[in-house]
Amino acid sequence: MHEKIDKFRSINNPYKDHIIIHPIMRGGIIPDDIQKILIDEGWMKVGYAICYDCLEGRSSLVSKPPINDFLSSIAEFFNGDTAEHTFGSRAAQFSVMKTIADNISEEFTKIVITDSLCHYTTVIAAEMNNLKILEVNHSGYPEYKVRAEDFIDKIESVKKETGKRPALIAITHADPYYGNLNPVKEVGKIAKEFNIPYMINAAYTAGIFPVNMKDLQADFITVSAHKSMASIGPLGFLITNQDWSDKTFKKSTIKLDWTGRTFSKKIVNIFGCSIGGLPLISAMYSFPYVVERVERWEEELNKARWFISEMEKIDGIRLVGERPHNHHLMHFETPIFWEISKHHKRKGFFLAEEMIKRGIVGLHRGLSKHVKISLYGLSWEEVKNVRDTFYDIAKKYIDEFKINFDLNKT
Amino acid sequence: MHEKIDKFRSINNPYKDHIIIHPIMRGGIIPDDIQKILIDEGWMKVGYAICYDCLEGRSSLVSKPPINDFLSSIAEFFNGDTAEHTFGSRAAQFSVMKTIADNISEEFTKIVITDSLCHYTTVIAAEMNNLKILEVNHSGYPEYKVRAEDFIDKIESVKKETGKRPALIAITHADPYYGNLNPVKEVGKIAKEFNIPYMINAAYTAGIFPVNMKDLQADFITVSAHKSMASIGPLGFLITNQDWSDKTFKKSTIKLDWTGRTFSKKIVNIFGCSIGGLPLISAMYSFPYVVERVERWEEELNKARWFISEMEKIDGIRLVGERPHNHHLMHFETPIFWEISKHHKRKGFFLAEEMIKRGIVGLHRGLSKHVKISLYGLSWEEVKNVRDTFYDIAKKYIDEFKINFDLNKT
Repeated sequence: MHEKIDKFRSINNPYKDHIIIHPIMRGGIIPDDIQKILIDEGWMKVGYAICYDCLEGRSSLVSKPPINDFLSSIAEFFNGDTAEHTFGSRAAQFSVMKTIADNISEEFTKIVITDSLCHYTTVIAAEMNNLKILEVNHSGYPEYKVRAEDFIDKIESVKKETGKRPALIAITHADPYYGNLNPVKEVGKIAKEFNIPYMINAAYTAGIFPVNMKDLQADFITVSAHKSMASIGPLGFLITNQDWSDKTFKKSTIKLDWTGRTFSKKIVNIFGCSIGGLPLISAMYSFPYVVERVERWEEELNKARWFISEMEKIDGIRLVGERPHNHHLMHFETPIFWEISKHHKRKGFFLAEEMIKRGIVGLHRGLSKHVKISLYGLSWEEVKNVRDTFYDIAKKYIDEFKINFDLNKT
Repeated sequence: MHEKIDKFRSINNPYKDHIIIHPIMRGGIIPDDIQKILIDEGWMKVGYAICYDCLEGRSSLVSKPPINDFLSSIAEFFNGDTAEHTFGSRAAQFSVMKTIADNISEEFTKIVITDSLCHYTTVIAAEMNNLKILEVNHSGYPEYKVRAEDFIDKIESVKKETGKRPALIAITHADPYYGNLNPVKEVGKIAKEFNIPYMINAAYTAGIFPVNMKDLQADFITVSAHKSMASIGPLGFLITNQDWSDKTFKKSTIKLDWTGRTFSKKIVNIFGCSIGGLPLISAMYSFPYVVERVERWEEELNKARWFISEMEKIDGIRLVGERPHNHHLMHFETPIFWEISKHHKRKGFFLAEEMIKRGIVGLHRGLSKHVKISLYGLSWEEVKNVRDTFYDIAKKYIDEFKINFDLNKT
């Protein structure tokens, strides 16, 4: 055994100096100075990093460091009433669905309505709680837009079929395929009209631009700190309102039969206590930076839109998803790279590999027909570098394979 | 908002240079050289630290870094068949209970039998899955021993009452109150005889001394990496055998109604994918060290036993829990400190505060009648330092308050 496992000590990170363009990573880049604080302050010393002064047995009640204050600030930041930290947006969504399943009344049926671009974790959260999940359609290629009014149709069809209302509307704020912003405000209105609990999965938006759950009439928002709040993972937040807080964050009620033990401070739907550890303290340090950066969203969006216009100068390359584009996640169809892949000995792998060789990591290995990327938080210089690199690779192989594509259509 | 939250940037860790004696922390200390690798290799740069080369959409299938190999090695290390990483032993226990609840057959009733010293997470995992949980008694003060034969009585009483067998026996390997080792092997035999699924919560033992689940006839073991495998938290493992693997780690089977999307690589009971991130890569680096340290357990146990004998020289101080003691978690009753607390202006808080002043952190603030500590992994010099510090504090206040306690009974 000893020999076989020695290799784990020599793992290296080939991408430590690369420019990252992976959409799931850009919002979760930890600023250098915060990495340094985490190290200098010794938070990496021990697994239970922030439990030294835990008096009541739950991380969210700890005041040294000020986790309780931090969670209040998180709730306030998103204009909710209460917040708990979770093991990511996936665990937050699980808690929401569990709350719904545990508190279902007769007017509701065990159905969740979601958008047809939802993240898989929304589906898994429903599956974990034995809730049926139904999709609201989108408009298909090339924009894949989800329309609010189609939620009404879906609700009506559930009512017709079951005589009851769906138990939850779970919408994805920015979808993970195209970076479309779904009509969260309009759907919030619909949810209110039909009196259906409403969850927004804000894993890709909360921490990127301002999100105000009361404006959106949401009962729950689920947040990913490692995806969009400049935090070490796994960490997320679940924010809810007064109507749902007691149910969502209900305390343990079991009284054990022999010892009579109870655990009345522990919150059932988050495993009693969600620990936090290094991810949580990293999120606390990053929070002022995140609060500040959401105000600079326009600047980031300009980078994305500039990049889209540059990429679309290459023959055949086209952004898929809504336009004008409103999110940092960009999905391009790239027929030129697809064509190159047919000639290249590394097939579809050539593209991610060529990018890595040039110091840019984050394309899905093997894909060349479509690429998903994000430039969120990169400097203009880096953004241009990414643009130039795509051009360089295209040019190299157009010449090499004598492919008939134009690098500057305009 | 901006002003209010600036404080989060200036959080400091007052304990960064302290000797830690908190029992939940000692097994989760990350060796200095591993902290250094994590930093040097740039694993702290981004929340989704290890997802660069994820091809299949689940962390446990990633081969760069070799997470798939690592999980096989984890399974092998504990002599199980398959392992997945989880958000801690609590999430692993949740997955086990969910597996049990989802697969209950007619011969079983929705009851979990556990020991009366179980960790609260075992109770919460049952509560999350609507399983009733019943305790097997212990022997009470001063040893609090749980006896294997009492599991038989409990099983029989459930059978008598319900006509069915309990759905799961969930035992705590080393209990979190006294550090007693429960009779896991004998109970494994009983579980087999009665044909009841058997889970061992090894959060305090796996990674501390060798644990062999087949020897113990366990169907599931749940492990805490941040508690006992020298890892950044939150992270745990769930290891199971061939009989239970497909059920425990079942893949998503939902096919969405409109898009037809499926997520057949995602494991339902671990939220699809349990991410891993920095905690997981830290556990991979620490693994060779952990494999090696479990072989040195005797040495660690000697330190604990020596310390117990030293502490018991102080008038009235007595180890509570089994003797000879077999685990690094030690629970002492400390009437001398209780007496001092009655005179001290800081009341019960004086003890933890005095220890902190002297560079030792980890006593529960406010408690002086009983203390729980661990010296696992400390050098002999540090162990003696901790002993001396307890003596110093006792002596200081015996003199100051003229209390009638003897510092050296022998």
